[in-house]
Amino acid sequence: MRHFISILDISSEDIEGLVDLSFYLKMKKRFGKNEKSLRDRNLVLIFEKPSTRTRLAFDFAAQELGMNTTVIDKTSSQLGRGEPLIDTFRVIERYADAVGIRTFKQKPLEEVSKLISIPIINALTNEEHPCQTIADLLTIKEKKGKKNIKVAYLGDGNNVCNSLLVGCASLGIDIFVATPEGYEPNKIYVDEAKLRAKKNNTKVVITNDPIEAVKDADVIYTDVWISMGDKEKDIDKFKPYQVNKNLVKHAKKDFIFMHCLPVHRGKEVTEDILESYHSVVFDQAENRLHTHKAILLYVFEV
Amino acid sequence: MRHFISILDISSEDIEGLVDLSFYLKMKKRFGKNEKSLRDRNLVLIFEKPSTRTRLAFDFAAQELGMNTTVIDKTSSQLGRGEPLIDTFRVIERYADAVGIRTFKQKPLEEVSKLISIPIINALTNEEHPCQTIADLLTIKEKKGKKNIKVAYLGDGNNVCNSLLVGCASLGIDIFVATPEGYEPNKIYVDEAKLRAKKNNTKVVITNDPIEAVKDADVIYTDVWISMGDKEKDIDKFKPYQVNKNLVKHAKKDFIFMHCLPVHRGKEVTEDILESYHSVVFDQAENRLHTHKAILLYVFEV
Amino acid sequence: MRHFISILDISSEDIEGLVDLSFYLKMKKRFGKNEKSLRDRNLVLIFEKPSTRTRLAFDFAAQELGMNTTVIDKTSSQLGRGEPLIDTFRVIERYADAVGIRTFKQKPLEEVSKLISIPIINALTNEEHPCQTIADLLTIKEKKGKKNIKVAYLGDGNNVCNSLLVGCASLGIDIFVATPEGYEPNKIYVDEAKLRAKKNNTKVVITNDPIEAVKDADVIYTDVWISMGDKEKDIDKFKPYQVNKNLVKHAKKDFIFMHCLPVHRGKEVTEDILESYHSVVFDQAENRLHTHKAILLYVFEV
Repeated sequence: MRHFISILDISSEDIEGLVDLSFYLKMKKRFGKNEKSLRDRNLVLIFEKPSTRTRLAFDFAAQELGMNTTVIDKTSSQLGRGEPLIDTFRVIERYADAVGIRTFKQKPLEEVSKLISIPIINALTNEEHPCQTIADLLTIKEKKGKKNIKVAYLGDGNNVCNSLLVGCASLGIDIFVATPEGYEPNKIYVDEAKLRAKKNNTKVVITNDPIEAVKDADVIYTDVWISMGDKEKDIDKFKPYQVNKNLVKHAKKDFIFMHCLPVHRGKEVTEDILESYHSVVFDQAENRLHTHKAILLYVFEV
Repeated sequence: MRHFISILDISSEDIEGLVDLSFYLKMKKRFGKNEKSLRDRNLVLIFEKPSTRTRLAFDFAAQELGMNTTVIDKTSSQLGRGEPLIDTFRVIERYADAVGIRTFKQKPLEEVSKLISIPIINALTNEEHPCQTIADLLTIKEKKGKKNIKVAYLGDGNNVCNSLLVGCASLGIDIFVATPEGYEPNKIYVDEAKLRAKKNNTKVVITNDPIEAVKDADVIYTDVWISMGDKEKDIDKFKPYQVNKNLVKHAKKDFIFMHCLPVHRGKEVTEDILESYHSVVFDQAENRLHTHKAILLYVFEV
Repeated sequence: MRHFISILDISSEDIEGLVDLSFYLKMKKRFGKNEKSLRDRNLVLIFEKPSTRTRLAFDFAAQELGMNTTVIDKTSSQLGRGEPLIDTFRVIERYADAVGIRTFKQKPLEEVSKLISIPIINALTNEEHPCQTIADLLTIKEKKGKKNIKVAYLGDGNNVCNSLLVGCASLGIDIFVATPEGYEPNKIYVDEAKLRAKKNNTKVVITNDPIEAVKDADVIYTDVWISMGDKEKDIDKFKPYQVNKNLVKHAKKDFIFMHCLPVHRGKEVTEDILESYHSVVFDQAENRLHTHKAILLYVFEV
């Protein structure tokens, strides 16, 4: 068994393998050949922050694989009464075969994971969203193939951005991130991305210039400017990074628009782009289902 | 596939078919012959208002048919963070094969449904409660047969009343609704009920006179005076519509008392009537389970 | 069918049988031989207070036995809108084959149960926690065998203590309870424990002296000083009952430390004891899973 907590710990080869496995499972479902390869295993899903996509995709992915699932959130469990995470996990490992968790800080989760004998899957922390990245990469692969792709990420250098950086670099995709000053992605993810990109001879560029990022891009990706639990931000600084008609004209004509949802129309992206034929946000959302299956098989090493 | 959102869109024939199918599935369960005819399909249940009966009946009905289910509510999902309903549905249709929703306004739900390719089942809106109506009609059929029945609905002309009106008219049941002035059912449901009743040569009467409604009734039906999300009401105006000893003596001797629950003893009905042998409220509640199965099979056109 | 609501109503023989059955089911799971002996039966779990262990253990136990489950809590159901417990149960018995409930007062639950035709399982009340007791007894049996055992319970004479008292006495285990004055366990449980102990010629001692209780004990058991829903307490009075280095030196050298969790380090027990090799709290927690299966089979008389 292995955890799926930080993209930093997943090798480029494993990331590519997960994307391919996700695609295979997607095709399998399309042809009505779901296999209950995890039948009778128990999955706990813990949500300390709200979730629609992750919760549904994860729960159904597990059930389609034959798992028993149960979902707990902060108000319904002893986490809300201040039970330390490690205690909750030490109990859960006695009942369940795997656990998915949406929580706050990455670090405590990683520390807890060293003591836990069942796989832990990171369903979003303040720093990372690795499940999202696998779905993003599958979407890029499906829409654009894997050769000579340029991805432009615009806006807030948040958890989605951190994970995407390493994911793109792992697969040999050029990734340009344009954020306002002070909202760059974490150095540790940038460094790891650069390391992985070097092997692939591809680019990792962190900039404050949205046009440099979008220039000839195949993929334009943005996310909400204010994430769950964020403190107040100076929204005015983000306005130049809005994905709109003026900005996308610098991209390739057949660029695709991606967003991990929920989206705020008129904030990080305008309605016309979001609802244009460039937008693949719901295909991207669908892929969450298939990639969660791949991740479950991965952590169990099935 | 088809939606089950408004009773106005379900033909009289389909309503009758749903009642008959519900009864068939009820018998089948009684003889231990549940069939997993929807095995491996995914159902999302969304509750933006509290629910006991609908939630349990719907969830178990689906599981008994072999479905995977997951329940989300406003606090646990991005709906609580203001994601537009259409976006949530466009994601859900990628993960699930059907969705049941308890929400506020009927109109936005109907509009969303036109864009969604999986069946949507209305599990109560401010205007309608069509799932309840199928269970009500099954109960009336079981207890009273289908010929020459008079139903008296008393109290608030709410969602339950709107749907019941059309349901009764569709099946050739006389329906009398007595409410305080200003609390009549919506005109659109009254009109549709009258249209359907005309074909069956039966009666649809909207009145403010509780005795006129109850006179020789086979069925006395009431609901809470204040529904979930209602603004304040002048409760005094409702008192003449309380189902009590004095009122029911105008009904047939073997009348049955119905209520979709939860009930407020001493408000819309007195304890002695609620707990008398006339009361069939728990048989009525049970039928929710069987009718949810029928509705699921109906929307999938299985 | 039978309820599992009060330990007072479960005979000593049945308690022993439940412990043995739990152990058998634990071994069966270990060897991969889960049997779906309750396939297609519906279980409702109601939590009016938060829960991690009970919720997960109960839900997975039921699913492993093949049951359909659905969990409701106060905010998501009509219980939050003040529906009387009896009405909720009268509806649930129409949809489900069994119900587990975590609620407040024991008495109303017992009264309701007389009118309900499906088994009700007490998943904690203010007065009792009988499911916990079966898991506790299994743990004691596994770690210490069943002969000449002395259990010392320290701290608050709460629901866990009440149930444990009767449980230990039923199995011929000496039980010493040391609490501050005014926090003794309920007389009714003490009396029943003494009655049962008499048959086994074992001891039931209620004291305010922690050292008397711990002296030569095989098992030291404590619980939180402030339970869910408790009013304010004078915590200073509890300090002499803290399980710490000084206290445990009066116990047998190979004593085990038990706690039903969640635990407050530095309050009822110090970190060094909790994390020592004496501590079996997670084995104890695991047993909740196996005992819930036994209890489910017990109530259905399968």
